[in-house]
Amino acid sequence: MSDYQAPLRDILFALDTFCDLDEIAALPGFEHADRDTVAALVEEAGRFMADVVAPTNRVGDEVGARLVDGEVVTPPGFADAYGRYVDAGWGGVPFDPEYGGGGFPWAVGLVLQEILTSANMAFSMCPLLTQGAIDMLSHHGSTEQKQTYLPKMITGEWTGTMNLTEPEAGSDVGALRTRAERAEDGSYRIVGTKIFISFGAHDMAENIVHLVLARTPDAPPGTKGISCFIVPERLVGDDGSLGERNDVRVASIEHKMGINGSPTCVLSFGDDGGAIGYLIGEENAGMAYMFTMMNNARLSVGLEGLALAERAWQPTLRFAHERLQGRAPGAPRGESSPIVEHPDVRRMLLTMKAYIDAMRALLYLNAASMDRAAHHPDPDVRERSQELVDLLIPLSKAWSTDLGSVVTSLAIQVHGGMGYVEETGVAQHYRDARITSIYEGTNGIQAMDLVGRKLPMRAGGVVADHLGRMREVLDRLDGELSDAGVQLAAAIDATEAATRSVLERGAADPSDALAAASPYLRILAVTTGGWLMARQALAARDAAAGARSDDERTSLEGKVAVARFFMEQLLPEVHGLVPAATAPAAGLYAVDPSVLAP
Amino acid sequence: MSDYQAPLRDILFALDTFCDLDEIAALPGFEHADRDTVAALVEEAGRFMADVVAPTNRVGDEVGARLVDGEVVTPPGFADAYGRYVDAGWGGVPFDPEYGGGGFPWAVGLVLQEILTSANMAFSMCPLLTQGAIDMLSHHGSTEQKQTYLPKMITGEWTGTMNLTEPEAGSDVGALRTRAERAEDGSYRIVGTKIFISFGAHDMAENIVHLVLARTPDAPPGTKGISCFIVPERLVGDDGSLGERNDVRVASIEHKMGINGSPTCVLSFGDDGGAIGYLIGEENAGMAYMFTMMNNARLSVGLEGLALAERAWQPTLRFAHERLQGRAPGAPRGESSPIVEHPDVRRMLLTMKAYIDAMRALLYLNAASMDRAAHHPDPDVRERSQELVDLLIPLSKAWSTDLGSVVTSLAIQVHGGMGYVEETGVAQHYRDARITSIYEGTNGIQAMDLVGRKLPMRAGGVVADHLGRMREVLDRLDGELSDAGVQLAAAIDATEAATRSVLERGAADPSDALAAASPYLRILAVTTGGWLMARQALAARDAAAGARSDDERTSLEGKVAVARFFMEQLLPEVHGLVPAATAPAAGLYAVDPSVLAP
Repeated sequence: MSDYQAPLRDILFALDTFCDLDEIAALPGFEHADRDTVAALVEEAGRFMADVVAPTNRVGDEVGARLVDGEVVTPPGFADAYGRYVDAGWGGVPFDPEYGGGGFPWAVGLVLQEILTSANMAFSMCPLLTQGAIDMLSHHGSTEQKQTYLPKMITGEWTGTMNLTEPEAGSDVGALRTRAERAEDGSYRIVGTKIFISFGAHDMAENIVHLVLARTPDAPPGTKGISCFIVPERLVGDDGSLGERNDVRVASIEHKMGINGSPTCVLSFGDDGGAIGYLIGEENAGMAYMFTMMNNARLSVGLEGLALAERAWQPTLRFAHERLQGRAPGAPRGESSPIVEHPDVRRMLLTMKAYIDAMRALLYLNAASMDRAAHHPDPDVRERSQELVDLLIPLSKAWSTDLGSVVTSLAIQVHGGMGYVEETGVAQHYRDARITSIYEGTNGIQAMDLVGRKLPMRAGGVVADHLGRMREVLDRLDGELSDAGVQLAAAIDATEAATRSVLERGAADPSDALAAASPYLRILAVTTGGWLMARQALAARDAAAGARSDDERTSLEGKVAVARFFMEQLLPEVHGLVPAATAPAAGLYAVDPSVLAP
Repeated sequence: MSDYQAPLRDILFALDTFCDLDEIAALPGFEHADRDTVAALVEEAGRFMADVVAPTNRVGDEVGARLVDGEVVTPPGFADAYGRYVDAGWGGVPFDPEYGGGGFPWAVGLVLQEILTSANMAFSMCPLLTQGAIDMLSHHGSTEQKQTYLPKMITGEWTGTMNLTEPEAGSDVGALRTRAERAEDGSYRIVGTKIFISFGAHDMAENIVHLVLARTPDAPPGTKGISCFIVPERLVGDDGSLGERNDVRVASIEHKMGINGSPTCVLSFGDDGGAIGYLIGEENAGMAYMFTMMNNARLSVGLEGLALAERAWQPTLRFAHERLQGRAPGAPRGESSPIVEHPDVRRMLLTMKAYIDAMRALLYLNAASMDRAAHHPDPDVRERSQELVDLLIPLSKAWSTDLGSVVTSLAIQVHGGMGYVEETGVAQHYRDARITSIYEGTNGIQAMDLVGRKLPMRAGGVVADHLGRMREVLDRLDGELSDAGVQLAAAIDATEAATRSVLERGAADPSDALAAASPYLRILAVTTGGWLMARQALAARDAAAGARSDDERTSLEGKVAVARFFMEQLLPEVHGLVPAATAPAAGLYAVDPSVLAP
């Protein structure tokens, strides 16, 4: 049996509470995605990922992906599990039925992705990157390109990659140098080196569709001169048959702290003259196209934080019940207590669970807002939903990935010395989690995006709407939720003041906004988490009143208690961050850091 | 050349500012430890550790300690470096000259230990454990035991271990089961299994002196029935010659997330009938003896947080100057800036450095207070100093080790994707750091120690004195330090209120104090850090006014700026923690965590 079990009850609660699943299912095109169907789908996914994928997680970490005679060999079991994943059709759930997809809401796709990622994050990156490539082709590929690539990618028979990073172009994508020259047949010849390409080569599928950012000879400098190309590992004939190998090879794979099962490749394009590439859309529009898929990709990486936190939480909760150590307050003399009875262990466990619930709420809300933005019949709702999506994305990405490290670290701490021993398993989650704050835009980049692009939307109107929406819940926080309500109101006040400060100072001097960016992002994220936990508490309280069984009521009361803990004890963090978020940039430049060298 | 360089300037500044080195050197017995001698010693240690020890760090992590044919083989270079360490006499600096030690203040020993640990933490654990064993024998061994073991241990020719943990006895030491039966010759026969024994076996020295906690047959249960034994790996003849091997063997070594160069052993005592052990002091007094050495051990582990932070900081600062990426505010269009110019990168760098300075201040102050407590001619000063030591120890251990993870994590973040690649080196420090929050009393245990044992000292008088001492600095925080002073005053106020709450509620119900323990510890530690940074700012401001060179003045102004950053932007964290530190335990028990299982 797997040591991971999909948290179906929590997932459905979050779908109901934060996605309004019934409303999403009523959107045009989603009629088949009613609650029962979704619940059955999630349950089936839970079984599959626990039985087939989760058992590959540990060996994936221990053995890792290897480079053997110039070819990437994935860890034992990966290829088999991937074959079964493709056969079961899990990769196509949220995509266009015209190309073989399931046509389910993005929120449902995200739920499946959570379960897959909890089962094996390194493994999940192959479908995740494929999803990004599908997303790009769906939006910007020609009809012919879509017909050639999408059906095989949606089944998962072919996988996808995103080739952005180069040695001198990381956060600064505009610095990339890979060249693309137009050939006489209208295709391009690509020459250059890309690094950090997840699943850039592997033995799990018959073809890999690389999407590659490159510059044409006359392209303008920076991000305005980037074009996007399809560079299949094996060329595809007009009849869809696979032809010879393209001029792409793996130069090496990285030795990383975690996600060892995921081959992180250095790809060399054009060593033999030039890899054949096909332009997507227009030349020099590559960066604009990247932006259209960025929200999905960033949401998915935020989700990795949640998924690892959930994976680490489950064995930690079991361990805390099984491990006897010391006498807890009130326990009989001479008896050892399960450590779950010790106050400080409880604090760690509640902190883990509260962050997990808050992350799930935020990420699911974000995904459902994407569905509304794309499918709602009312253009006004679409527009407002898209604004909320854009505002939430940096929070979903940065806060969830930072919390992924926090929660997996607490998992180690609860395990004590055993947590530091690799065989226990929780150390892997901590190592895996650390990359998520870095890739798909570092969390510093997310913070810059928030203060530089998102706060100024509608001259601050979007964030003002969000603050107003958060206040709406306050009136209902009565009874046992009163103290939590006081904390939430104080947090919203503090967030509003910090928001005003960042907006006003940023308008006068962008440096001040950038200096404030990271602590401000955290403030907005934690307060948003507090608001979502208020909604959780209210929904669970209401549902508990009408519970059909003791078990159901107890579980719902647990969700109230966890939400209260968040609001009363974790949410106040924002007050400690306000001085940093409202300080001018000058404090950061008061010293030339080189004088701090030893 | 090593990529690590001992931060001599910072170390001497901290010794002068927080230890009052001249005063320490004037204590009886320390007359030879004048400032010039200490400075020369530290400089020489810096050279040695950088040249000899630091180069073994990476290979120690990559190869790790291995178990080959039942014997532990340390990583390449470890035995040679250790031999040179012994030849140079570094291990004996703070110990009793009567047994060959250097008789230097503990604060000076701690400085050398910082440098050694920065050079290679895994390696440093061998001298660290030896130091603990020396400490125990010095205080509680018989004259004969001291004469037999101390000289060889102080030179480092023999190393030491501490054997406490067993599979069912981790934080709960009192649950240990290893048996010790008295033999006719007055020695004991030890039978049992110990786990997590650092350097429990190795190939770097000719003998290992295990100190083993065990129970005699008629011992009372729990911590009151623990005795402490010397169990040498090789028996020692009356003439000091090494005899046959004792009945101790390595059953296995752990596969850990970090400190791979340090063999973490499962030791099996008495498989062939019983290992020969010699009682230290009295039966059943073992736990009391452990307490006398606990402060030193906990301070040393706190120091590991600082040492790893410093080690990770140095390459990160260099990288931030060398790595060009994006355009910083104010930089010319079309040019890439060193990332050190980006506000968010500066925030990360200043955060790292501010925490490093604050940790060093706290740890050195703590060590100097130990010297005063042990050597000051005035018994009143000794008593007050010991109280301060006892109060600070849990802060030194828990806060510094947590910050070790924070700072090494920031080192990875500044490096971006490269930070996650093992070859870069900073990932190792992050992995190494994670154990420090766990061993030598988990940080939860430290927090329980603080609220359960330390706050109640003199009915709260000790912590009240500390708060008063912190207030004394406020008057001098004028001019550019005014804002920082306002923050420090607010933090002290908040800490005072939280202290009162924990003391009052804890008196009524210990559970409430235990529930508050971790956030309260953090509050007291951060505020103490703020006070120390205020002292740093004042001392550096005064010294800058009399600086003898531009270079010196610039460096001192840097220390002012770093201290201000701490006080203005990091110190306010305390306000976000107050609600958790003043909440009743009930919130932690509002839900039975088992209902939160998936």
